[in-house]
Amino acid sequence: MMRFAASLMLCLCSIQAAAAPRGTGDLGVVIERATGQVLVVEHSTDTRLAEIDGLGDLSHASVVFSRDARYAYVFGRDGGLTKVDLLDARIVKRVMQAGNSIGGAISQDGKLVAVSNYEPGGVKVFDAASLDLVAEIPAEYAPGSFSKTVGLVDAPGNRFVFSLYDGNQIWIADMTDPEKPSITRFKDAGKAPYDALITPDGRYYIAGLFGEDSLALVDLWHIEKGVKKILAGYAKRDEQLPVYKMPHLEGWAMAGEHVFVPAIGQSKVLVVNARTWEQETEIDVQGQPVFVMARPDGRQVWVNFAFPNNDQVQVIDVESHRVVKTLAPGKSVLHMEFTPRGEKVWVSVRDDDRIAVYDTYTLEQLKVLPALKPSGIFFTDRAHRTGL
Amino acid sequence: MMRFAASLMLCLCSIQAAAAPRGTGDLGVVIERATGQVLVVEHSTDTRLAEIDGLGDLSHASVVFSRDARYAYVFGRDGGLTKVDLLDARIVKRVMQAGNSIGGAISQDGKLVAVSNYEPGGVKVFDAASLDLVAEIPAEYAPGSFSKTVGLVDAPGNRFVFSLYDGNQIWIADMTDPEKPSITRFKDAGKAPYDALITPDGRYYIAGLFGEDSLALVDLWHIEKGVKKILAGYAKRDEQLPVYKMPHLEGWAMAGEHVFVPAIGQSKVLVVNARTWEQETEIDVQGQPVFVMARPDGRQVWVNFAFPNNDQVQVIDVESHRVVKTLAPGKSVLHMEFTPRGEKVWVSVRDDDRIAVYDTYTLEQLKVLPALKPSGIFFTDRAHRTGL
Repeated sequence: MMRFAASLMLCLCSIQAAAAPRGTGDLGVVIERATGQVLVVEHSTDTRLAEIDGLGDLSHASVVFSRDARYAYVFGRDGGLTKVDLLDARIVKRVMQAGNSIGGAISQDGKLVAVSNYEPGGVKVFDAASLDLVAEIPAEYAPGSFSKTVGLVDAPGNRFVFSLYDGNQIWIADMTDPEKPSITRFKDAGKAPYDALITPDGRYYIAGLFGEDSLALVDLWHIEKGVKKILAGYAKRDEQLPVYKMPHLEGWAMAGEHVFVPAIGQSKVLVVNARTWEQETEIDVQGQPVFVMARPDGRQVWVNFAFPNNDQVQVIDVESHRVVKTLAPGKSVLHMEFTPRGEKVWVSVRDDDRIAVYDTYTLEQLKVLPALKPSGIFFTDRAHRTGL
Repeated sequence: MMRFAASLMLCLCSIQAAAAPRGTGDLGVVIERATGQVLVVEHSTDTRLAEIDGLGDLSHASVVFSRDARYAYVFGRDGGLTKVDLLDARIVKRVMQAGNSIGGAISQDGKLVAVSNYEPGGVKVFDAASLDLVAEIPAEYAPGSFSKTVGLVDAPGNRFVFSLYDGNQIWIADMTDPEKPSITRFKDAGKAPYDALITPDGRYYIAGLFGEDSLALVDLWHIEKGVKKILAGYAKRDEQLPVYKMPHLEGWAMAGEHVFVPAIGQSKVLVVNARTWEQETEIDVQGQPVFVMARPDGRQVWVNFAFPNNDQVQVIDVESHRVVKTLAPGKSVLHMEFTPRGEKVWVSVRDDDRIAVYDTYTLEQLKVLPALKPSGIFFTDRAHRTGL
């Protein structure tokens, strides 16, 4: 009997040690780059829930979520792909899938996770449950020549879209048969694509080009039309002005009929017509913009900046194009993430080791959370959106 | 020792009976109207998880979700407001908050749940955690005259918007101070508003009018502009044609620059310009449309129909305006809900006691689930969206 009771107690303890049930719709992950850690957080009452280490090199790390919003897939710079259980606050599995990689995506059906690799150049596709390798797509753009891949996104129809930096191409991988991806290749898509975005409806894929003075656009509803060049002059810039940081293309804000785009090397946000893809006007801001992000209702756009103006955030009114507020969250603001319905925004302040939470209506700071050199912030509602 | 072991066993059992941890991003609720029950379901593998009874009169029932996606708030026709724990599959609390009610909403910050009542006429606001009454907004449109309230939605800025059927008014309640709502009243908003919608960005509130041949629109970015009448002729109809069912205004599909609107009493879907609010064209369909719903990527619109054509669903291609497929899910199709990223759609087939799940790309039926006279289907990603 004694033994029976003891085994019961053991069993009881292990049950108690496991995660308590809770909703996962308000969870998130914050990258702590310097220490290879992530914070698990929740944004209903804005608290830290756990800290997890052992994720490797997290510079330029990004995160996607399982469709049940329980698991985070963290893409590290070192080729590490780590599946984190947000409820248990532990690493479920970690694979070193390449030597050097940048970004990833999860398929529309949630069954496949893809990673974009520099070395060896190409995309690898994993089973989202097991992290077993399902398919490899080497970016061989000419016999024996492999390209770094960049700008990998998911698209409707269980497709992945990505660009070949060295190959000057854009590829669409249809994963209907996961083990045999069907690839559509756009050759001569533009010189040296370095990053890309997909519009929130999943229709337009836009790649930034290092080697040209425009961007490459693919209409995924009409791939037969090929690649169209848009926003000629976007990359043209005053050679006198140093470019402190190339803005992320993910940092474009879609707000109603307009897209708010960070200028390259200039203290400006460009306002672009989302139908014609032509610039309509520009807005002066206090530094070179990095992320230009729309509050979910499209009423405001929030902007952070490159060095040396990276201690401020500016809030732009979408209708009047005016800067309505300049905030000073602290030293080196790296990223911003809105709560799903936009009432709050979390801002990572790397060099002050903290996250600042703002009310997006009063523009007052609500709370400060400690974090070790925080960079990217990712909330689980991304699980339900395309291209995030 | 024996007693100790026994009490441990008891304790163990109760822990095992409690919910296992799981993500809540892929959960949902199906209304089983006839029996006052709801099904808890998940759409990753399309299964039923639990059935919960005791929810009262669920005709015309609707559901919103807590911001952590763990709890469903079910609004019944009998004035019952029921908070359901999806993980534990049980009723947490149920209040009979009025004698007769229609619909509800959850505030942007997730802290307040509002219910729209016919009897007594007005809106009641409850604490989302405790279901304690926080505020009452009697719909007194003239001294001693109270109106039925309809078309209640949440709006950005922690506001609720609703219409007074008998009072011909539209009211905006700003819940910044939850106990003292600040009310903006639009008098003479139009005759007999009977239902309403808010656009996905939370900007435009549109009420259908029984007593007029147009709809009432409020631009929530510019409430100083008052109410504008749009779509003149919408309610005008051939008196020879019976109207089998007034289409829901929630059943309007926003797809890119167009809104797809069910015609009243005609076998047509109207295509309306979302900027001018003028009709551009119309699409012939096989019956009087009830719900006209856009796949999340805006590429397709799915339509169900009123009696006697309610055994079919038609799929419209948004670009060509053509009906690309007519499906026959079964007898009396009442509602449709897309998975968050749109790869599947669940269809409730009341008189065949089942739910049919379709692949929205192949348009093939993937699965059938049994359900007792199912009506509304609601997935938890609604927690993260405005006006749902």
